[in-house]
Amino acid sequence: MDNYGNSQDLMVPPVEGVAGGGTAYGWGDSGQHDSSQLRGTIDPAKVPSIDLVHAWYMPSTANVGPQDMPRPVEPISLLAARNERESIQIALRPKVNWGRSGIAGAVQVQCTDLCSAAGDRLVVGQSLTLRRVVPVLGVPDALVPLDIPISQISLYPGETSSIWVSIDVPNAQPPGHYEGELIIIATKADAESTVQCLGKAEKHQLYRDIKNCLEIVEPIDGKTMDEVVERVKSATTSLRRVLLSPSFSDFFSDNGPVDMMDEDSISNLSIRLKLSLTVWDFVLPTTPSLPAVIGISDTVIEDRFGVQYGSKEWYEALDQHFKWLLQYRISPYFCRWGDSMRVLAYTCPWPADHPKSDEYFSDPRLAAYAVPYSQVVSCGDTEKDYLQREVDILKTKSHWRKAYFYLWDEPLNQDQYDSLRSMANEIHAYAPDARVLTTYYSGPNDAPLASNNFEAFLKVPEFLRPHTQIYCTSEWVLGNREDLAKDIIAELQPENGEEWWTYVCMGPSDPHPNWHLGMRGTQHRAVMWRVWKEGGTGFLYWGANCYEKATVASAEIRFRRGLPPGDGVLFYPGEVFSSSHQPVASLRLERLLSGLQDIEYLKLYASRFGRDESVSLIEKTGMYLGPERYTHEHMPIDVMRSEIFRTCQS
Amino acid sequence: MDNYGNSQDLMVPPVEGVAGGGTAYGWGDSGQHDSSQLRGTIDPAKVPSIDLVHAWYMPSTANVGPQDMPRPVEPISLLAARNERESIQIALRPKVNWGRSGIAGAVQVQCTDLCSAAGDRLVVGQSLTLRRVVPVLGVPDALVPLDIPISQISLYPGETSSIWVSIDVPNAQPPGHYEGELIIIATKADAESTVQCLGKAEKHQLYRDIKNCLEIVEPIDGKTMDEVVERVKSATTSLRRVLLSPSFSDFFSDNGPVDMMDEDSISNLSIRLKLSLTVWDFVLPTTPSLPAVIGISDTVIEDRFGVQYGSKEWYEALDQHFKWLLQYRISPYFCRWGDSMRVLAYTCPWPADHPKSDEYFSDPRLAAYAVPYSQVVSCGDTEKDYLQREVDILKTKSHWRKAYFYLWDEPLNQDQYDSLRSMANEIHAYAPDARVLTTYYSGPNDAPLASNNFEAFLKVPEFLRPHTQIYCTSEWVLGNREDLAKDIIAELQPENGEEWWTYVCMGPSDPHPNWHLGMRGTQHRAVMWRVWKEGGTGFLYWGANCYEKATVASAEIRFRRGLPPGDGVLFYPGEVFSSSHQPVASLRLERLLSGLQDIEYLKLYASRFGRDESVSLIEKTGMYLGPERYTHEHMPIDVMRSEIFRTCQS
Repeated sequence: MDNYGNSQDLMVPPVEGVAGGGTAYGWGDSGQHDSSQLRGTIDPAKVPSIDLVHAWYMPSTANVGPQDMPRPVEPISLLAARNERESIQIALRPKVNWGRSGIAGAVQVQCTDLCSAAGDRLVVGQSLTLRRVVPVLGVPDALVPLDIPISQISLYPGETSSIWVSIDVPNAQPPGHYEGELIIIATKADAESTVQCLGKAEKHQLYRDIKNCLEIVEPIDGKTMDEVVERVKSATTSLRRVLLSPSFSDFFSDNGPVDMMDEDSISNLSIRLKLSLTVWDFVLPTTPSLPAVIGISDTVIEDRFGVQYGSKEWYEALDQHFKWLLQYRISPYFCRWGDSMRVLAYTCPWPADHPKSDEYFSDPRLAAYAVPYSQVVSCGDTEKDYLQREVDILKTKSHWRKAYFYLWDEPLNQDQYDSLRSMANEIHAYAPDARVLTTYYSGPNDAPLASNNFEAFLKVPEFLRPHTQIYCTSEWVLGNREDLAKDIIAELQPENGEEWWTYVCMGPSDPHPNWHLGMRGTQHRAVMWRVWKEGGTGFLYWGANCYEKATVASAEIRFRRGLPPGDGVLFYPGEVFSSSHQPVASLRLERLLSGLQDIEYLKLYASRFGRDESVSLIEKTGMYLGPERYTHEHMPIDVMRSEIFRTCQS
Repeated sequence: MDNYGNSQDLMVPPVEGVAGGGTAYGWGDSGQHDSSQLRGTIDPAKVPSIDLVHAWYMPSTANVGPQDMPRPVEPISLLAARNERESIQIALRPKVNWGRSGIAGAVQVQCTDLCSAAGDRLVVGQSLTLRRVVPVLGVPDALVPLDIPISQISLYPGETSSIWVSIDVPNAQPPGHYEGELIIIATKADAESTVQCLGKAEKHQLYRDIKNCLEIVEPIDGKTMDEVVERVKSATTSLRRVLLSPSFSDFFSDNGPVDMMDEDSISNLSIRLKLSLTVWDFVLPTTPSLPAVIGISDTVIEDRFGVQYGSKEWYEALDQHFKWLLQYRISPYFCRWGDSMRVLAYTCPWPADHPKSDEYFSDPRLAAYAVPYSQVVSCGDTEKDYLQREVDILKTKSHWRKAYFYLWDEPLNQDQYDSLRSMANEIHAYAPDARVLTTYYSGPNDAPLASNNFEAFLKVPEFLRPHTQIYCTSEWVLGNREDLAKDIIAELQPENGEEWWTYVCMGPSDPHPNWHLGMRGTQHRAVMWRVWKEGGTGFLYWGANCYEKATVASAEIRFRRGLPPGDGVLFYPGEVFSSSHQPVASLRLERLLSGLQDIEYLKLYASRFGRDESVSLIEKTGMYLGPERYTHEHMPIDVMRSEIFRTCQS
């Protein structure tokens, strides 16, 4: 085929200079002012950092990638309730190169406390934290902690980097307006400063020289004056030579030693980004209104951290995971997979008579806990009465209302449904008010409950009753027909304690809300908006740490074959990114938290104006209208939150 | 719409453990052996680097991106003629993390000379160079030099990096088999070593302490013995305190100070990748057989490096660019754009009577040079007879056969064709054998030369004759109809010195060969394969440094608006990546060079077996069959080269 027909589209190389045409040279010239200080080697200690680096705000729902282009810096003001975390990103991109080979340059990032006029503070390191956004499979995802209060990050030529700034407002923080600053200053990279610092060999030499001096003069007692004088002279000569060595050359100057970069130049040259936050008098409930139960694979922990099932280190590792995840308003359960999707789900690895059991289950941040159907770790005694013993203890406790039993993941045929029934029977024999949770997306495939799949799916509650109380269905089943949620709910008997929960996993896929890597930020956050709109009363996610198998803590993270990237992974082992043992959250986990916080806002609004008005609010702000119609921009989220702040402020 | 119909595609979360299904946990477990040395903090000085990092070869036509997955290391053997550059890549990806926050770890990369059994050498730093592949707009493109013979690079969690290894075989290198090694060893990053090294503040304290000791004991003369003893004791106490300070804590151990990583451990722990090269007795001609003339914008140089048109620094900057580009078997011309695509093209900024003129034009590596139609830099005297004076000088020289005049880029209407004719008339009046080069993709649009566009395009030589000798047409015109090349050639009169050259610019676009960023490596290299197959005798490219305007040498590179990324850019200013002033080649420039070298191989083959056989060779190896049918793999290139080596070895 001859494509000569295209020749009407003129293919004109760009024209340079004044006479030039449309695609011409110099189009992006605005704002690039000629600075003679930028000729030759650039000393960041002498040039305003704003000439070296772009710095601008991005909302927490933005996925800031290396190719993101600078935006104008507009004043931002954040809103947060007490007991809420609010986050924002600072994007950085070098304008020029002032570094060594490999990096465009380094910047020091520091943060001040946020202070109110009344003198109240949100303290750096406690309420204010900084994390670096690190790509996973090329997509910004991992949030690796930065040192507080000052840390240094490297910028790369032609690449935008991002810093994730989080503010955790304590429960008791006085409401009011708080202000602080993020200070960015271009600097020489650490590796460059090492030129000025003593290396190991040099230091060793120095050590030997000084030691030698000591050996020359000591011991002094019993020596003649002449000998002492001679030895002291020899020693002082050595010391003088040491002082004149190149190691100390930077202190020779007539004006005495040069000092570190002084405070003045930091303040004159730095870029200062204001952080402005309004704390309002609403306190997010400590116990999440919507239980979000999230699985943690114990097997993955055992393999990656080399801890043996049931050992002291195993309990410690699980304990660390439990505590870390509680920060995110989620209710973790550990899980171990059996055959045919039988699952052993347990929130507490210790038995009910262990003090840890009460500690875990009474934690007010825990909204729901999984009770294992069988013994998690065998202690040598018989397992026979295990279940009854556990239930007998737990059902007397006030936290028993949080308990649930998760026995089987997505039963698919009559056999599996039967097994589930017999387990549930046993549980209900010991405690008639026990809640069994079952995840499903269809009825049994070998005994259709109705003539079409969706009807059969709808009939599952009738089929399973009374062996399940929490009917937990895949959001994927609904497709974009959110109205079908009403049909599901209509089948339930809330008066008998039946609830509708939902889950996402492999599906639904784009453009529907889910937590896969590469989805939009608002798409991650919308998972919880969807739950609110559809009216589910709880949520389940199958895995937060389900990486591919590795036997080294710091081994590269690989996602499992056959799953969409990010599915089953909400955080990373800290060891993958640094020597830290603290887990590293994903952006997606932060957005899950934000979604859960949004639910508390909406619940507050609903408590004043009714649930219908709360749904109407998320629709009219354009934030969420349906699984294929939700905002891609951040603005509607702020509008929704401000409206609730405005109308619900007491 | 209800997508429930999909439920036949089971959405089963992965099953962990032995009972699991297909997408199960542990699929990629092979080769990951449990090493107790990888528990806790990893010391790269104690662990074989192969446990920490993957290292594997990639061909020069591969675009190795951060998500590239490791491949098995298979022995490679390279083939090169004398006066040829052959390149290969080494890809590196961390298996685990052994670094500090931000990086997975650092590796030292070093390279040995390549030696033959006869004791001949290809020397590191001269014939062997290492460059780091740096992404531009997220695509691997810039080749930033690494230090020789040892350099350190940082690896990032979950990211593959690549090192570009080039071997330049000198003209006089004895043929034979050469072997050497690339040695990769995981190490602590520079920045980490600073933990062990003295910072400035610490060092300053040390300086003061030692100085203080000196002041205590000096001057010693005239003091009493008691006083001396007292002072010496005070000084030695101070010195002892210095030695026991934390600065020197790493030397306290009973076994004496710990030594640096020793040679033995380097050789025991490192990864050694063999480089094996056969040099054959063919010598690539110093003067390229196919002139590839490539534009360099003088305006861009003036703006970015702040050199004033015509100043001493301006001449130096142009001179540096000319010399650097000659390495790539291309014939540079500088250019300045006028109105309506009139172009001032000149290979030498000095006039013909300047000694530099002969130096430039006689350089055997230069295959063609552009003579400016008007004075490049006005020297105060009248421009009136400038052209005649220049031509009169140049036409007497033996290098005159390389001369051409490039007057107008893509004339589009009768006016422009007329201007071109009158300029050519003037030139031919002074030198009837002067060659005028004209780029075009159509006839005049206001006076169609034929009833359809392609016919009109074909008639341009008839229309322009005798005002143009080098008819330089866009490859875009041919589309995938390479057979149309015959029609173009049929219109020319080679007996009267007429030639057909081609060019690429914005077009043709993917999948046709061009040098845009993001195209395949073989697609870049195929630009020259296409020239060989179609039978053009020269090639033109409009720009090698046509970035968007910037007035700071190290300013971020931006591509011009309206152009495909990479179009008009074949190298970068070194300042963008480091403090070096040496230009940084793109991968695409290296592949242009490889393509030009391929042409020399094919020319050799054609000289033995005829041109048709050479075309048949590139077809039967699967290397190049047409603008939409060329290899995506590297293998056919090696097959083609080996076949020429086998059949043409004298």
